[in-house]
Amino acid sequence: MATPPQRTELSTLGEFGLIDRITAAVELQNPSSLQGIGDDCAVIDPQGLTQVVTTDMLVEGVHFDLGYVPLKHLGYKAVVVNLSDVYAMNAEPRQITVAIAISNRFSLEAVDELYAGMLTACNAYGVDLVGGDTTSSTSGLVISITAIGAAKKEDIVYRHGAKENDLLVVSGDLGGAFMGLQVLEREKAVFKQDPNVQPDLSGFDYILQRQLKPEARRDVIALFKEMQLRPTAMIDISDGLASEAMHIARRSELGVKLYDEKIPIAPETHRAARDFNLDPSTCALNGGEDYELLFTIAQADYDKIKGSPHFTVVGHLTDKASGCQLIDRQGGQHELKAQGWDGLKG
Amino acid sequence: MATPPQRTELSTLGEFGLIDRITAAVELQNPSSLQGIGDDCAVIDPQGLTQVVTTDMLVEGVHFDLGYVPLKHLGYKAVVVNLSDVYAMNAEPRQITVAIAISNRFSLEAVDELYAGMLTACNAYGVDLVGGDTTSSTSGLVISITAIGAAKKEDIVYRHGAKENDLLVVSGDLGGAFMGLQVLEREKAVFKQDPNVQPDLSGFDYILQRQLKPEARRDVIALFKEMQLRPTAMIDISDGLASEAMHIARRSELGVKLYDEKIPIAPETHRAARDFNLDPSTCALNGGEDYELLFTIAQADYDKIKGSPHFTVVGHLTDKASGCQLIDRQGGQHELKAQGWDGLKG
Repeated sequence: MATPPQRTELSTLGEFGLIDRITAAVELQNPSSLQGIGDDCAVIDPQGLTQVVTTDMLVEGVHFDLGYVPLKHLGYKAVVVNLSDVYAMNAEPRQITVAIAISNRFSLEAVDELYAGMLTACNAYGVDLVGGDTTSSTSGLVISITAIGAAKKEDIVYRHGAKENDLLVVSGDLGGAFMGLQVLEREKAVFKQDPNVQPDLSGFDYILQRQLKPEARRDVIALFKEMQLRPTAMIDISDGLASEAMHIARRSELGVKLYDEKIPIAPETHRAARDFNLDPSTCALNGGEDYELLFTIAQADYDKIKGSPHFTVVGHLTDKASGCQLIDRQGGQHELKAQGWDGLKG
Repeated sequence: MATPPQRTELSTLGEFGLIDRITAAVELQNPSSLQGIGDDCAVIDPQGLTQVVTTDMLVEGVHFDLGYVPLKHLGYKAVVVNLSDVYAMNAEPRQITVAIAISNRFSLEAVDELYAGMLTACNAYGVDLVGGDTTSSTSGLVISITAIGAAKKEDIVYRHGAKENDLLVVSGDLGGAFMGLQVLEREKAVFKQDPNVQPDLSGFDYILQRQLKPEARRDVIALFKEMQLRPTAMIDISDGLASEAMHIARRSELGVKLYDEKIPIAPETHRAARDFNLDPSTCALNGGEDYELLFTIAQADYDKIKGSPHFTVVGHLTDKASGCQLIDRQGGQHELKAQGWDGLKG
């Protein structure tokens, strides 16, 4: 039998003890991080670059279920989803601040796991944890992360820069994270009925990783520099391809045509969707959490991405009056609907 | 009889509707705010200045009690406490991001009140709300605010810059916010026993304002510039004078002597403390939430602050071996203890 994990109560450290413990685990690696944890503010040298900033909040029971998400993975993912927003500006993330509210039902070991995951992501992406807040919560775990990045002003890519006839391009493949979630939820339901049944996750490695340990497309931003390609507009895919394509179109005051048959879907995602009697395209369009980059390029730049295994052209921008359309495999046209997560409904 | 306030369910708007509503209420005023809400990140022009960043999280039932804190005041205070951290670096706040988790028990009108308070603070301090996140919560309200400020690199004041024999100086007066909280809690207890009793808050205006609508000392930072005074170390008083003085001493690797008789306490605070059979000095030392600035200056700079109604010398820095001491009115020496709020205990 396995030894039960050690449990140390958070109250044995107190808030300052916890902050000291986190601080000790952090080593600043970014020359732009002049001051990390330990003062009223962190201090950042912009080094002549424009700064970008984004904040996300993750709430237990809304965004994650600790029944099947290990805390270390949660910490990793919480950081990555913020970095993804920075890359979506064609910028390099450099610093994060982390605020968490945590109840006494969590042990010190649990908090260590959470921060270990966050710091693993920081190291993987060359980002410093420079500040934040730790506080108690009366119920669940809440994590709020702010990421700060930098780029030359002229390199920053907004959602609103797309032009008519620009190509709509996506990195990687879509729908995997959503299918990973379906598998986890199915196994949780089975476990609830009979706790003696071991979860059957075999053959689902790819989609589980997409859900539990997503990566932000730092490599894509580096590729753009290599290729000397500047997208005209960009967004990261957190809510699903449909919703993000509509954001670019709406903000650029254009319409968009998406081609169902072009949507890149991994074989593992496809198979899992069929297992669950789901339409793979629908999973890609509305599933979300893929953290791929969706961007537009001038047609003149098509040669730069042609043949790349990283990119797929999924559509193009149209005039505003044409609206946002999905073209099915038979050539039929359907108005796009954003059915991404809407946490305040229902 | 008063008309009951209108109640519109948050679900009628959804997340995107809510974001649109917030966005519509925001007008950027800071030339350094290049892009506000509406993209993957906000974009900030550092204008050649070093950037500072701070994050705080406020949790219902831990940091505030909606039983006696109006949402508009809560929004105002949530912003101000972050700006106070920026001023404590001798920097000017310019942007904030706001992440909130909110449950369906809040109406749209309640969310409007909360944001109205935050935007009132933004306007009062010349700060832009440039981004954030709104999400649902399974229980209480959680607010996480990140403030970003700017200063010339050589103007930034850290906690660790104090030198031996530097004077320890505080702005304004202390203990008021804590006494305001005592009054509110007393009236809440009375109300619980008999809801027909009207709260008796007369004569407590000053301390109630200190608790419910604190201000950050923007004026002090401006005064420093006028006086050509650069503090050697600085911190804002959120946890109480004792704890903050110890932070400066500890980070500067020094000791500190605080003189009880020098601690500035407003007559209203004094009177309220006596009403509650509390020692006024203890309220100032350990009460917290005053958001005054505590700073150290070289003795040679004493003439610059002498006679100012804004500043009081409350002690001086000593060698490290002398430790952190409180000198009582009889000249007795007592080791300082930080008894500030420690949310993870108990």
